[in-house]
Amino acid sequence: MAYLNENYLKLRSGYLFPEIARRVNQFCEQNTEAAKRLIRCGIGDVTEPLPPSALKAMHAAVDELGKRESFRGYGPEQGYEFIRKAIAENDYRAHGLEIADDEIFLSDGSKCDCGHILDILGSQNRIAVMDPVYPVYVDTNVMAGHTGPADESGAFEGLVYLPCGPENNFVPGIPAEKVDVIYLCYPNNPTGAVATRQQLTAWVDYAKANQSIILYDAAYEAYITDPEIPRSIYEIPGARECAIEFRSFSKNGGFTGVRCAFTVLPKALMASTPEGKLIPLHPLWQRRWSTKSNGVSYPVQRAAEALYSMEGKEETRELISHYMGNAKILREGAREAGLKVFGGENAPYIWVQTPGGYTSWQVFDKILGDANVVITPGSGFGRNGEGFFRISSFNSRKNAEEVARRLKVLKW
Amino acid sequence: MAYLNENYLKLRSGYLFPEIARRVNQFCEQNTEAAKRLIRCGIGDVTEPLPPSALKAMHAAVDELGKRESFRGYGPEQGYEFIRKAIAENDYRAHGLEIADDEIFLSDGSKCDCGHILDILGSQNRIAVMDPVYPVYVDTNVMAGHTGPADESGAFEGLVYLPCGPENNFVPGIPAEKVDVIYLCYPNNPTGAVATRQQLTAWVDYAKANQSIILYDAAYEAYITDPEIPRSIYEIPGARECAIEFRSFSKNGGFTGVRCAFTVLPKALMASTPEGKLIPLHPLWQRRWSTKSNGVSYPVQRAAEALYSMEGKEETRELISHYMGNAKILREGAREAGLKVFGGENAPYIWVQTPGGYTSWQVFDKILGDANVVITPGSGFGRNGEGFFRISSFNSRKNAEEVARRLKVLKW
Repeated sequence: MAYLNENYLKLRSGYLFPEIARRVNQFCEQNTEAAKRLIRCGIGDVTEPLPPSALKAMHAAVDELGKRESFRGYGPEQGYEFIRKAIAENDYRAHGLEIADDEIFLSDGSKCDCGHILDILGSQNRIAVMDPVYPVYVDTNVMAGHTGPADESGAFEGLVYLPCGPENNFVPGIPAEKVDVIYLCYPNNPTGAVATRQQLTAWVDYAKANQSIILYDAAYEAYITDPEIPRSIYEIPGARECAIEFRSFSKNGGFTGVRCAFTVLPKALMASTPEGKLIPLHPLWQRRWSTKSNGVSYPVQRAAEALYSMEGKEETRELISHYMGNAKILREGAREAGLKVFGGENAPYIWVQTPGGYTSWQVFDKILGDANVVITPGSGFGRNGEGFFRISSFNSRKNAEEVARRLKVLKW
Repeated sequence: MAYLNENYLKLRSGYLFPEIARRVNQFCEQNTEAAKRLIRCGIGDVTEPLPPSALKAMHAAVDELGKRESFRGYGPEQGYEFIRKAIAENDYRAHGLEIADDEIFLSDGSKCDCGHILDILGSQNRIAVMDPVYPVYVDTNVMAGHTGPADESGAFEGLVYLPCGPENNFVPGIPAEKVDVIYLCYPNNPTGAVATRQQLTAWVDYAKANQSIILYDAAYEAYITDPEIPRSIYEIPGARECAIEFRSFSKNGGFTGVRCAFTVLPKALMASTPEGKLIPLHPLWQRRWSTKSNGVSYPVQRAAEALYSMEGKEETRELISHYMGNAKILREGAREAGLKVFGGENAPYIWVQTPGGYTSWQVFDKILGDANVVITPGSGFGRNGEGFFRISSFNSRKNAEEVARRLKVLKW
């Protein structure tokens, strides 16, 4: 008799975004006129076309696949040398951060990477997540059997939730109990917060002292405008020995539909066998990719490479500046509407306190019904997300301006 | 202290193909003249350019991403409706097999799918694999902790190996002990064997009687030329209740560098909770994709769709007929060389008995050294692969003819 993975049965009903989609579809079916003026600021999905340099590179790569002389089949499972080198050189070595080409592992998305990294970690680890939290960190640990059941608030037994709120600027302090694996995400999804060098140093020091591992999700690093804020965890001394970094081309190059991301796993990073022997994780991650993947689509790898060309860098800067212009408009709009606003300065997300004791799903329904704007309810990100909602600035300028206008006239 | 997944430490040295690459590189460095006439019939990688319909569709999709009006970001995690429908309609319903669009789950490769499917299965299952075996089935189970250590022959404790050889035409009989999950791969990699309707019916009947699950890898189904041989496990009555099918665009459309494949998981397929309650696996697989993926690159999905157009079908047929023409030449060449030959009639692989008591790695070194041809040693596929080697017919016609010539003059 075949058994299923019973840990899946602990998961809470639907992933957040399908539930939002369900409510939006229902609203649109019942309100066909209002549906026409709907503006989506919910899911963090880019809206602007791909940079011309990426388009050009993809076309050229497709042409290569059309000729026998230049045809390419299976590539290296961890990514072609050309893209691993471009990443290590431009994102790290150019900033004085010592990362080797073969410490870069190319993938089809950071969401996938955040799940797959658990493949190489043991089941004994005590796992800490921020709260509010990107649901993927939690759900993948539930699936892997690293938790007990959820309580009424949706918190899973066995996970350590690190509360984040206005009182700590959405950066968790070091917990009282010992943890082995810590997820940190800066710029943060959903709160739009960033962590200072001092705050990250405290975490790296903690991880080194306790032989813990930091899983550092930097998918939004391109949105950091403040030069004092670290863009990579490897800017913190000692992080090469304790941190794995996740980055993506989704939000800088607009690759959410193209699919490309990467992890950085330094060779100096060690983890323990059950007997307490420390050995490097790099060969395990290398093996995981060789065994479970055949790498990223070749034209996609060329498109990612093109983002590092002179033109690609300039086009990416323009894209980010467009979305950050929206963030400013939305942030100010929400503030002028009398709402309490966080984030949106070094991140494409604005995190807003719900007014007048509304729950975040009540606010979702109200903003959908009265302003015909889709936002993301904070409670979808965990217990400490309740009382907040997220506005995404991934949109056209016109839509961002219109959303700001509508927020201002909304009656609470 | 962070722990690693200690199951990885049970894995045997390097995955097969990296080891082949290492020996070939070494040979080429030491024999620069011979290196110039090297022909690779090792790894099963296509060599011919992509079908024009797929190229055209990819170019068009890239252009769509270049305009705001037609730009697409995140797609459905399980694949766009257009491709799921094209697959279900053309590969199944057109052949009278009842498979719904949402029973198709699009992915970036069958290798990945074979690994990921274990995510939703329990750790209590008794797993059976064919021997010789595609190493990914074994290694992913080792990584997931479903086995003990390997013995000297490389066989892992806890796995049930089903011996395949000339005596059973490389199709395993029902084992004496009960197994819960069975990997079957037809047309087979590496042996090139196919399973008859009667043989598959025996397995489906066994699975239904024991509530077991068959993981049916049909990545090479397009190479079946004999109309009596089933192309899908769902041609066997009852398979909807007990089989998950894996298919790929790698070997029919030449997508090894483009990356697209799919699983079929029928809603009627049930598995057991630890308490013995049977529930459908489909929602678990759906959830796995929602949580751990953002779907396949959009231009890739359009390229796959194009393979189902009139032109795409014709171009795919031509590609397969090209490779099967090679298979015939290689098969006859090996036979005329006095070798004992299997497969290559409904599959792109020729499986050859090693002559004169050579081990398969000895044959590898000899054919590399004397004929400057790369083959795959059978022992890389497990204990019962020893005494055989695999010749891949993925090559140009000229190369296939040249390899056949060189085999004939090889002195043993």
